[in-house]
Parts: sequence; structure tokens; C-alpha cells
Amino acid sequence: MTRDLALAEVRLTPILVADPPLLNTQGVHQPYTPRLIVEVVTADGITGLGETYGDTRYLEVARRLADRLVGHRVSDLNALHALDVPVAADGVADGVGAGGLRGVQNAGKLLLSVVSAFEVACLDALGKALGLPVHALLGGKLRDSVEYSAYLFYRWAAHPEGAGGERDDWGAALDPAGVVAQARAFVARHGFTSFKLKGGVFPPDEEIAAVRALAEAFPGRPLRLDPNGAWSVATSARVARELADVLEYLEDPALGTPAMAEVAARTGVPLATNMCVTTFAEIEEAFTRGAVQVVLCDHHYWGGLRNTQHLAALCAAFGVGVSMHSNTHLGISLAAMTQVASTLPGLHHACDTHYPWQSEDVLTERLVFDGGRVAVGDAPGLGVALDRDELARLHRRWLDDDGALRERDDAAAMRVAEPGWAVPATPRW
Amino acid sequence: MTRDLALAEVRLTPILVADPPLLNTQGVHQPYTPRLIVEVVTADGITGLGETYGDTRYLEVARRLADRLVGHRVSDLNALHALDVPVAADGVADGVGAGGLRGVQNAGKLLLSVVSAFEVACLDALGKALGLPVHALLGGKLRDSVEYSAYLFYRWAAHPEGAGGERDDWGAALDPAGVVAQARAFVARHGFTSFKLKGGVFPPDEEIAAVRALAEAFPGRPLRLDPNGAWSVATSARVARELADVLEYLEDPALGTPAMAEVAARTGVPLATNMCVTTFAEIEEAFTRGAVQVVLCDHHYWGGLRNTQHLAALCAAFGVGVSMHSNTHLGISLAAMTQVASTLPGLHHACDTHYPWQSEDVLTERLVFDGGRVAVGDAPGLGVALDRDELARLHRRWLDDDGALRERDDAAAMRVAEPGWAVPATPRW
Repeated sequence: MTRDLALAEVRLTPILVADPPLLNTQGVHQPYTPRLIVEVVTADGITGLGETYGDTRYLEVARRLADRLVGHRVSDLNALHALDVPVAADGVADGVGAGGLRGVQNAGKLLLSVVSAFEVACLDALGKALGLPVHALLGGKLRDSVEYSAYLFYRWAAHPEGAGGERDDWGAALDPAGVVAQARAFVARHGFTSFKLKGGVFPPDEEIAAVRALAEAFPGRPLRLDPNGAWSVATSARVARELADVLEYLEDPALGTPAMAEVAARTGVPLATNMCVTTFAEIEEAFTRGAVQVVLCDHHYWGGLRNTQHLAALCAAFGVGVSMHSNTHLGISLAAMTQVASTLPGLHHACDTHYPWQSEDVLTERLVFDGGRVAVGDAPGLGVALDRDELARLHRRWLDDDGALRERDDAAAMRVAEPGWAVPATPRW
Repeated sequence: MTRDLALAEVRLTPILVADPPLLNTQGVHQPYTPRLIVEVVTADGITGLGETYGDTRYLEVARRLADRLVGHRVSDLNALHALDVPVAADGVADGVGAGGLRGVQNAGKLLLSVVSAFEVACLDALGKALGLPVHALLGGKLRDSVEYSAYLFYRWAAHPEGAGGERDDWGAALDPAGVVAQARAFVARHGFTSFKLKGGVFPPDEEIAAVRALAEAFPGRPLRLDPNGAWSVATSARVARELADVLEYLEDPALGTPAMAEVAARTGVPLATNMCVTTFAEIEEAFTRGAVQVVLCDHHYWGGLRNTQHLAALCAAFGVGVSMHSNTHLGISLAAMTQVASTLPGLHHACDTHYPWQSEDVLTERLVFDGGRVAVGDAPGLGVALDRDELARLHRRWLDDDGALRERDDAAAMRVAEPGWAVPATPRW
């Protein structure tokens, strides 16, 4: 019964994973995205897995954190948030680069995103040590599978000539017909029954037309549109009005809590966010102003699975709904998302996930969507296993990179196709 | 490693425990108070302990809950809140009897108070099964001991002639000198360094004088006064003004969120509550109106230790402080309070506890206060053991009672001394 839960080793492996040419307000996804794989190893030799953003600034914080963790017990999750880890403010300016997709960037959020990977890895190790699934360490699952939505993107068929990257068979989606075709492929491949379109790419009327086309193709299905704050209050209110009959919610139509509050006052369509509410400190203003009706939790942003549960309880207390946000991630995070989502009593919306877009993973076995749902495993820990060969291959790609891809920069990727591209000022429309 | 965490048996033992003649707004504590001891037993024979209110209406709900729990895994804590347990509305009128000390009574709160005992018992059993202390199941302790405050009461030396009850050596405390003497005894016996006076018993000027006397006797020590909502807004504001220089916080001076908000607008003294915010549903109004600056969490009210953590995270997000409330309780609950309190990052106030007033307990070994602090044990589970002989003796007392003491009724107890006593209308002053 006695186990040594102290950490003997922490391994950090930055990798580059293939990412398709998905379009957003900032530009386009790079051919390869940096990601950091965290392994914590207990004195008994049990390994726990976590993953998070892999850009250099995250990696540097992770290295500092890892140095502190040898000897730390994997059950000491609260203490992960009490570690005094210096976070350089360099490169953490407001709303720059891909960071502009996750709201204001600051040192605290960067630290939480790194801590989240260690918390998940500790939970994975603890679960394995105890013979319990992660959800049992979070109070137990309330459902046997978690529903995800099809995350539709405007996209090119391939990365620009000369940009490199992997090919896939999804084809382009640049108009309503392309979006509907993509949605049909999502349904055929994974069985999703709700749909989210990443917007903010084309003028609002084109995106309204795409959502209308989805509504016609999939009558009665939950639909979401997310322009990442690209619109003015007036445009947001107009889009909400025109799509009021088909939207489950409108996600971050305008940037910042004051603008979101103005939009909310002008529409009955629920507003969701993963931009104006991304930390506990941002909640009070947003909730008291009625700026958001659904918070998209994301354990990377919020500092782990236990904070995600706190957030959900907080939202429930204020009558605010909960859904789940996703950024480019692999199977470790999908397993973590699924485990925590299974424990949230008020989860009434399908979760977002980029996972179907990721052709590469570091797991021996990919997670699968059945009817758009991921089963909540009862195997110890997260229930996933690392493919060390694949990890080494993707790490080699990171080592071989000249640094150009080690910082995710959707605007720079866009400039390969459109040399004059700059991230548009907000609101764009 | 494989363990059967399913419950094979649930044992409920109602008891009557000795309680001194402590005075409050409702009347006086009965000579014996009903309490319910919950034991959950896993298929592997591991027993977990919990305790909660023992009045008949709690006992009835506990029996219904217990019937549902055979086969339930002790790790399935979230599911405890999803059980469909009917709660009779009988005897759950608003603000009646001792219930008047814990805010509005309703079926939901009654159920949570019962669930809390099962949650604690499941955590105790789970911890024992896994070889981990309860705090490790809650993310790990952040401190090795938890500070408690001396809970001062106006009181008689003994229960009225003919009321029965046990004798103790505390003596009477009915004026400032008596309160100070009691505080000195608390310091001598347990080392407390902060003090709370239960008020609402005498006219406000007498209680102001008592707090002033404490401030003189213990200069610079944190002091609190709690009249359980007995005062008008004007009286509350006046007391706050007169004691502004010595109060750590003023607890529930006036009844209900609107009145508390009015008081808060008229004083800089922080207001604490365990009456107007006792459920998640009551938070939004109180926080958005700025009615309270400190919430006294209580795992019995809030439905367990994990909900207590959610509450603390919620309070932190709104810049509201956290302290801990206590009602007559035994060592099982003190151990549970200590375990969860050790995990709360924002616990900047000493916790309340009635435990020093309880001369009887069902544990083989009483918990001790050292310098006013209880050590956070690392033994598996709660780290306490049941004294079955004592449990049987106190249960026998419950069985032998004719029903008069099975419902805590401080007003009825007061009528033994003052035949015409009725709970005063609020605000009394």
C-alpha cells in the first residue's frame, strides 16, 4: 500500500506536430505547431503525461517549474499553484500573434498554461499509482462519454507552395458549400452532431451564409460561430439577429468584456467566450455585466483539471453555462479534457476539439470519436500510453527546425501566401 | 492494487451529545444535542466516518440516502449530488428554531447537510483504501496546521434546574468580565490567539462593552462579533462604527442580503456571513451587491469538502475572503474541517469551532489545539478512529430520550428557565 509518490524525474520534450492550413482572424495555422510533452516520473517509476503549448516562452517556464518539482509528491496538486516560478514578461505583450486568439496575454496566464500540463501529468501518475482513472481523482465521472462538436474551419487544401507541411484529404473550404462539405466529412468520419465554425475570416455576410447553409444541411442541429472578436458591436448585433433562429451560441463576436456586454444587451442569442473570460480575475466584471452566457473552459488556460471544476461550479452559481474550448492539441490533452468533462454536472454543450485535424499524435493508440463522443475510460490515470518512437520523431523535427516554427505565428504563416499580410486591426468588420 | 471501492453497508447512528448552556438569539443550547454519525463500509471492509445534524428531518433524509448507496463506489463523490432523494418539506419552514441560526431553511440545504456527511465518510474510506490522507484526495495540504479561533459564548454556569445535562467547569459568562475570563480560559487551555463572541443575546451596548474589554485584555488580537442577524441596519452600522478599530470582521449583524448590503455601504468593517450566503444560489445577489466581504464556509451547509473548495475558489475570484463556520460538532467533523481548510489557498482568517465546548466525543482520541491550531494529519483518511463503546452510550441516550431532545430547539430549552420565552422578532435591536 505504501508508495513513494515523490517525483524523481521530470522530462520535457518539445515537438512540432503537423497542422493543416486552418484560417482564422490572425492568419493561418503553420504547417507544424510547437507543443510540449511533459512526463513526470515517480520514485516508484510510474510515469504521468501532460501536454501544453510548446512555444519557447512556455518551454522556458516549464523548465524552471520542472527544476522545482523533483521531490514534489504527485498528490500535491494545490501546491503546484503556490510554486514561486519567475515568468519573464518578454514576448507576453497584449493580444499579439496567436495569443490574440486567447484574449489578453500575461505572465500569470502563461504560468497557468504550463502548470496545467504538470497538474495533468501528476494526476495521470497518481491515478496509475492508485489504480484509479483520473476522473475518480476528480470526484468521479457523471457520464460514460463526452460529446464533442465538429470544429469547422475555413481552410486551404494545402499549405502554400514552399511552406512545407503534410498533405491531407480534407480539401479546401472557402465558401458555404465547402463548409457544408467539410461538415459532412466530419459527420461521416466521426459522427459529430453539432457544429462550430471558426469565423472572422471572411466578411460577416459570407459567414452568415455559411451558417445558414449548415442549418439547411443539418436542420435542428446546434450551430456555433466564432469570429474571435473580429466584429464591432453593431456587426455582432446584426449577425446575432440574422442567425438568432439557428445559433446555439455566438462565440466572442466582439473583443473584450465591455463590447461583449453591449452585444449581449442587444441580442437574446447566448454569447460564449474563451477570450474575455480566461482567468478567475476576469469573471467578476463579465458576470456582473451579463457579458457572457457561456464560458468555454480550457484546462490549459485555467491551470488544470481541478481549476476547471472550480470554474464550472462558479459558472453554475451565476447561471452561466459551460462549454469547452480547444486549441491545437494531441491525445494526452483530449484524454484530460474528456476525463474532467465527465465530472462537470452542468456541461450542457458539446466540447470543442481540434483533435480531428491532428494527423499526428504521440500516443500508441489514437482516441476515437464514436457518434461524436469520446468514451470516458476507467483505466488507471488518463488511460493513454506514449509512443516513444513517434515522440522522438516529432522532437527531432523540433530540433531540426531553424526556429521559424518554434513560435506559433499564424500571421507569419499567412505571409508565405500573402506577403503583405498583417493581423487586421480589431474590429475588422 | 485492485480494490473493491463499492459500498457494502451504510450505518447511521443518531446520538445525543452533551452541550453546555450557551446563549444565542434563539435561546440556549439544550443539555444534549442530536448528532448523526455516518459509517460507510466498503466491500473490502474499510470503514469511513462522517457526521452531521441529527434532528429527525436530517435522519430521515439520511436513511433514504443510505438506501441508495449500497453498491455506490466511495470514489463517486460527484454522483452523491446527483442522487434523486426526496426531501419532505415538513418542518423545513423558513428560519424556524435553531435553523434560524443558519439562514433560510429549505429542502435543498437539508439535503446538502446530509450529503456532506456521506461525502466525508466516502473520502475517509477512500483515503484509508488508498493509504492517503483526505487532504491528498483534495489536491494536498498547503499548511501543516489550521488555526482556529476561541468561540466565546455568553452562558450560564449550568443548565436550569430540572433540565438535566452535564456539569462543566467553565462557569458563567454574562458580562464583559465574564467574557474576558472565558477568553483567558480558552487561551490557557487551547492557546487560541483570536476570538469570536456570539452576540445577539444582550442589548448591543453590553456586547460592545464586552468586545472592548476583550480588546483591552488582548490588544491587537483579531476579534469578531456575531449577533446572528439580531440588529437593524442602523444598529449594525452604529456597532460597526463603535468597534471599527478592533474588529477583524462583524458577522451577520443584520438579517438577509439587502440589509447586509445596506450595512456594508455604511461601514468599512468587513461583514462576514453564514446566514445570507449559505448556498451557491445565494452568492450572486450578495456578491454583486457587495453585501459580504467574508464567507464563512461550512462543509455541512455546502454539501461536503469538495464544494467547500469550489466555494473558496469562487470567493477568491470575487475578492471575497473565506473563513469557516461551526455549529455544535464532534471530532469527525473537526478532522474534516481541518483537512479541507489545509487545502484552501485563500484562508486568511482563523476558523470557528465549537469543539472545545464538547466534553463528549465518539473518537478514541480527541483532537487537540496547540497554540490554537489543529495539526493536519497525514494518516490515511481523516486519521480518526471511532470509540464504539462511547458511540453506543450516546446512542443509548438518544434511544432513551422521549423525543424532547431529538430536535434541537434552543427556544424550548430557554423556556425551562424563562417560561414565557419566544424567539424575538428580528431585528430585535
